Amino acid sequence: MDMTMRKRADQIVAASIRAVQPDDAVARALKGVVFPGRVLLVAAGKAAWQMAKAARDCLGDRIDSGVVVTKYGHVMGPLGNFDCREAGHPVPDENSFSATQAALDLASNLTEEDTVLFLLSGGGSALFEKPLVSGEVLQDITGQLLACGADIVEINTIRKRLSAVKGGRFAECCAPAKVFSIVLSDILGDPLDMIASGPAVPDTTTCAQAEAIAKKYALRLTEEAKACLHTETPKQLTNVTTQITGSVRELCAAAAAECRKLGYEPVLLTDQLCCQAKEAGSFLGTVLRTHHGQGKKLAFLAGGETVVQLTGHGKGGRNQELALAAAPALEGLSGVCVFSVGSDGTDGPTDAAGGYVDGQSNAELTAKGLSVFEVLKENDAYQALQGIGGLIVTGPTGTNVNDVAVALVDG
Amino acid sequence: MDMTMRKRADQIVAASIRAVQPDDAVARALKGVVFPGRVLLVAAGKAAWQMAKAARDCLGDRIDSGVVVTKYGHVMGPLGNFDCREAGHPVPDENSFSATQAALDLASNLTEEDTVLFLLSGGGSALFEKPLVSGEVLQDITGQLLACGADIVEINTIRKRLSAVKGGRFAECCAPAKVFSIVLSDILGDPLDMIASGPAVPDTTTCAQAEAIAKKYALRLTEEAKACLHTETPKQLTNVTTQITGSVRELCAAAAAECRKLGYEPVLLTDQLCCQAKEAGSFLGTVLRTHHGQGKKLAFLAGGETVVQLTGHGKGGRNQELALAAAPALEGLSGVCVFSVGSDGTDGPTDAAGGYVDGQSNAELTAKGLSVFEVLKENDAYQALQGIGGLIVTGPTGTNVNDVAVALVDG
Repeated sequence: MDMTMRKRADQIVAASIRAVQPDDAVARALKGVVFPGRVLLVAAGKAAWQMAKAARDCLGDRIDSGVVVTKYGHVMGPLGNFDCREAGHPVPDENSFSATQAALDLASNLTEEDTVLFLLSGGGSALFEKPLVSGEVLQDITGQLLACGADIVEINTIRKRLSAVKGGRFAECCAPAKVFSIVLSDILGDPLDMIASGPAVPDTTTCAQAEAIAKKYALRLTEEAKACLHTETPKQLTNVTTQITGSVRELCAAAAAECRKLGYEPVLLTDQLCCQAKEAGSFLGTVLRTHHGQGKKLAFLAGGETVVQLTGHGKGGRNQELALAAAPALEGLSGVCVFSVGSDGTDGPTDAAGGYVDGQSNAELTAKGLSVFEVLKENDAYQALQGIGGLIVTGPTGTNVNDVAVALVDG
Repeated sequence: MDMTMRKRADQIVAASIRAVQPDDAVARALKGVVFPGRVLLVAAGKAAWQMAKAARDCLGDRIDSGVVVTKYGHVMGPLGNFDCREAGHPVPDENSFSATQAALDLASNLTEEDTVLFLLSGGGSALFEKPLVSGEVLQDITGQLLACGADIVEINTIRKRLSAVKGGRFAECCAPAKVFSIVLSDILGDPLDMIASGPAVPDTTTCAQAEAIAKKYALRLTEEAKACLHTETPKQLTNVTTQITGSVRELCAAAAAECRKLGYEPVLLTDQLCCQAKEAGSFLGTVLRTHHGQGKKLAFLAGGETVVQLTGHGKGGRNQELALAAAPALEGLSGVCVFSVGSDGTDGPTDAAGGYVDGQSNAELTAKGLSVFEVLKENDAYQALQGIGGLIVTGPTGTNVNDVAVALVDG
């Protein structure tokens, strides 16, 4: 391993993730905001606890009380008088429903002067939910939609109507109070109504579309569910202000700034990467191969969320696969590296945040009898990278704004 | 279709391919070269006829005589007293062997003053071959190597030893005459000994390696073949001068120059692209999505040779798949396009050179009931692009220096 490059990679990773921490992001969003009446806090998502803590650090006793709902294991301690709860993710459970009910109770009977400070992060779709049908019916309909190949837009069009809080309905419940919504975006391009199915965003889908989807896939629906599909979602919300913060754009910008600090001219390729992880890695590897020896210190950046094609039974994640796939193209080159990390610190079902390779990695793998092609076919990037010191481990970061991949070349 | 963008794309394609025509490339390579004695021409590969014609246009009667061997259908007419032949590709046939023998006859009994002008292009490996074992034995060994998963380096290590012309042996046969070799490169990174297995390049592989490979895969070999593996290939060739020309680098440079002429700042990403075609297209699409609306006219270029993953039974090619895969990311954007072409004018088993998409393409496909995802799963890019005027058709260009993909954004 090229220890100089590795050190730089670690420095860029640390700086990028720091910049999109909920603490910094929430503080930026609250700067200069004045609330006229009472402030009630509702936080939902994988970063809910951190976002709530940051808001409390900013506003202190201005917040009357709060309900925080996050994933199991994600409450890091008490937060004053806030009601901090943990619930099921990615599949909602009874704790999701009761926590959401507690939030609805908190947000009801408020006046026009009051504000619900609504802090939303990735995972909110499961954690913040109050179904209008029974859990079994909801599960059955979701299962039917998945089985018949409905796309995510179609699924959400139906699911928003089966929920008391999605598709703008939570904001409607808060009225006449104002809703000040801070969204930590983990969906590329920041489509607000897709993040947790938009509890505080006017819904752009219609009953007619929902019924057309039900007909298209011949969904089997209870009478109760049918009635839900006939009930329109809010198309206008006059009581909501929304701030998007800590998105993948900010992650890339922070990475670019740190690269510049290290003397690399940053070239942002995209912040909406969504192709196959290993192919993106191969692409970036060949980018470095072409720019190596040209005398320019460059940093190519690609943010987004790649996908993994499962063909084996190994252990890994999309960031590890991306990095590993770049190794063959880099073989034998000096002063180059490719690394990729998930901003949440968890890449796939592993304890690593991502992976790192440089010009020595492929030879080191070969010496261990490993071929990148075979390892990727087995989706076994974790073991391979572990063997050559190529894992990037940050621990859970408390934020979730997609991934960033960086390819450095010293010239 | 956005006709303005399409016109620009066609202009860039035409200029790029013009620059790597064998005519221009051979003329550049011959500029200022003086031959002391007789000049005999041997041309092999898919561009052999054009290269021979260009050499004849440059040198006229300085060339005593010549043998030209190219693919069936690729001889465009007589070339003075040259012996123009057509033969099998990608599988060599009897015509390959007899044409190669004619070349060997031409190149023998020469003096130190004489020069064999050796013009090599892609496809030369099959077209220029004289096996030292019977055709059946050669085929059997190649089949064994492919079946046991030997890589291309291993295969070539064996095959060079079963040939009277590969691995530097053709140049050895020409001695004491000089060999002036002009290579139109179609392999990324221009590894000379890989292009047509290097008939005029010292071989870097050894008998010991060949025997190790035979042992590793337990190859079944005739006594004759075993003897071949024990016979060393030339490790030094003092009579050869080599010029590489018309490579993918020149293709990218010409595309970049034309982009600049049209007001786009060119950004060369790589000239060694080798990932999956459709994933490269998705990558480039998201690059444009990120740079759209930023106020800069940019042209991102990626040269190389992508691969197609066969999952369906449709008709298409890697350049068509690359372009088509970019369409969803471009949907709804104005002043953007992605196009990709093979410099030989033949993309896969189709009459198109490549494909073009812009911000309107995805909607046009949807209106025809087509989904890019499904079309790519069927490997059916040709039909889909044809339906929306997205095919790029140049006809055979007589050159073969890989592909170039371009992504334009107007700002």
